[in-house]
Amino acid sequence: MSQLGKQSVQFEKPVYINGSASIVGTKEGEGPLGLLFDMVGEDDMFGAQSWEEAESSLQKDAVHMALGKAGRRAEEMRYIFAGDLLGQSIASSFGLMNYEIPMFGVYGACSTCGESISLGSLAIVGGFADNVVCVTSSHFASAEKEFRFPLGYGNQRPLSATWTVTGSGAFVLGKYKEEKTRAEIVGITTGKIVDYGLKDSMNMGPCMAPAAASTIAQHFEDFGSVPEDYDKIITGDLGTVGQRVLLDLLRDKGYDISAQHMDCGIEIYDADSQDTHAGGSGCGCSAVTLSAYVLKQLEEGNWKKVLFVPTGALLSKTSYNEGQSVPGIAHGLVLVSPK
Amino acid sequence: MSQLGKQSVQFEKPVYINGSASIVGTKEGEGPLGLLFDMVGEDDMFGAQSWEEAESSLQKDAVHMALGKAGRRAEEMRYIFAGDLLGQSIASSFGLMNYEIPMFGVYGACSTCGESISLGSLAIVGGFADNVVCVTSSHFASAEKEFRFPLGYGNQRPLSATWTVTGSGAFVLGKYKEEKTRAEIVGITTGKIVDYGLKDSMNMGPCMAPAAASTIAQHFEDFGSVPEDYDKIITGDLGTVGQRVLLDLLRDKGYDISAQHMDCGIEIYDADSQDTHAGGSGCGCSAVTLSAYVLKQLEEGNWKKVLFVPTGALLSKTSYNEGQSVPGIAHGLVLVSPK
Repeated sequence: MSQLGKQSVQFEKPVYINGSASIVGTKEGEGPLGLLFDMVGEDDMFGAQSWEEAESSLQKDAVHMALGKAGRRAEEMRYIFAGDLLGQSIASSFGLMNYEIPMFGVYGACSTCGESISLGSLAIVGGFADNVVCVTSSHFASAEKEFRFPLGYGNQRPLSATWTVTGSGAFVLGKYKEEKTRAEIVGITTGKIVDYGLKDSMNMGPCMAPAAASTIAQHFEDFGSVPEDYDKIITGDLGTVGQRVLLDLLRDKGYDISAQHMDCGIEIYDADSQDTHAGGSGCGCSAVTLSAYVLKQLEEGNWKKVLFVPTGALLSKTSYNEGQSVPGIAHGLVLVSPK
Repeated sequence: MSQLGKQSVQFEKPVYINGSASIVGTKEGEGPLGLLFDMVGEDDMFGAQSWEEAESSLQKDAVHMALGKAGRRAEEMRYIFAGDLLGQSIASSFGLMNYEIPMFGVYGACSTCGESISLGSLAIVGGFADNVVCVTSSHFASAEKEFRFPLGYGNQRPLSATWTVTGSGAFVLGKYKEEKTRAEIVGITTGKIVDYGLKDSMNMGPCMAPAAASTIAQHFEDFGSVPEDYDKIITGDLGTVGQRVLLDLLRDKGYDISAQHMDCGIEIYDADSQDTHAGGSGCGCSAVTLSAYVLKQLEEGNWKKVLFVPTGALLSKTSYNEGQSVPGIAHGLVLVSPK
């Protein structure tokens, strides 16, 4: 491997995504990607007694299915890299404890999917692990309670608001290529916190867009690449409002990615018929879209190379209510087709 | 490096702690280690407008001082590994954004100091970085508000309760040994979540002790070592109640560490005169004790080899109020004297 430029690492030998799984709630199941998810819940409680417990069960089941698809047992996983949006990451703690896998808890808001896969990849490339599993989740109801208002309040949502995805995506990374390899991770660009001073937790796309622009522009610089080198450049959950900001900011930096750009938050719902306003968001948004849709395209060879950039808004209800801004962070992964 | 046993990595070449710093609040400054800390605040607001902002300023200043002591600039740090106890880790996000260092946010409750240094070490040993900085913090007032009751309520605390340390410790890790090297990291043992079903957030020592016992016993097994191989075996914040549980549990597993055991939570306050009950706790507890006291002993050669095991209680106020247990996790670092 080699350290590349300011924020990137290029792997001499790829890391392989040898299995993955996605579980979503009913609304996601009714969306444009509905048929691609591995499992759609019958209701959004998933048999649990609370929203938080429901989110834990999402992580547990996603890991279980990803291991099954990779043909691996939990004992073969050297580390689990996991996180979610809830305070003190309780969805992960309570969902994953029974696996008894040495655990690194991570937090990068909705960028956590990118962060967990970045660190999992480094563990494998560094020789510390042959197999790791990375998992992230979000849940509409637990997130609204955590960040904004309990659902029972029935508060109104502005058109700029995003809809937190109920879902979890898990990824089994391995040192060796297998027949079931879905994609190869060949490099990463790790984001730094970027804050343009925006303060609206009901309009998080523009809060995160500067971080996405920073990571993507730095990625091009570090790798000496241009937008045309990628079939797709995929952000996590900027939504329709954030997308416009991202494209504008990158144009100012000299990059036009309008032909390649895709946003998981825009893809996962049909905004017109599903009343989801600016799009989907949450750790689960990029994770389930990666597993169900992006990896499928890479696996089938429809796309050769993708820059996948989950985006996170680093707010809490405390920071919001204390009048702080909403800083963003975004972590990039370079994924190539195994074909 | 080599993967060792079930949960450990032994480094062929050590990682060097080339600078560190500790900042604490007034109460910690009045405690037994008071004269050893690099900075003691005049009051616990540290010039900020809120407790959360105060905690952010602790992290910011700790990193600044650690960089200064290591003779490094922020731009030389390839990554920052950071976390705290607050929901969505806002102490880190708002404290560290101005450094513009690529960031991996981590969460392991009060074990976060061990987790951040573990991941920082792997980044260096793996060849992905020459220098990284790891920082964690806690603040008595922000933690009480986050986990239990706002201070204004004046609630009573049982004798089993611990007192969250106001403080932050930062560590600059490097690939190369320098004259200012304070200690060498030669291996890690990564913990898994352990839950004995205890539910009392006012008695967290016993909640975390099973995780500490699990990590320490696995460490001995993975490294083929015995308690006598270490000058000290140091847990993060079990306090006096948790210490008894830890020693009992390890005795049951065939290890007597009573001669080597030390707990940062017990060392940092004088329980009798400071009314801190079972001891100190929080991410800051192990971090500032490591920087001010443990590294000093290693630096001076008074101790040759130490097993340092920060311990975390994976609860949130939501999980607690929903009747969930308090699972624990503990991450071990093997530190040796540079002499």
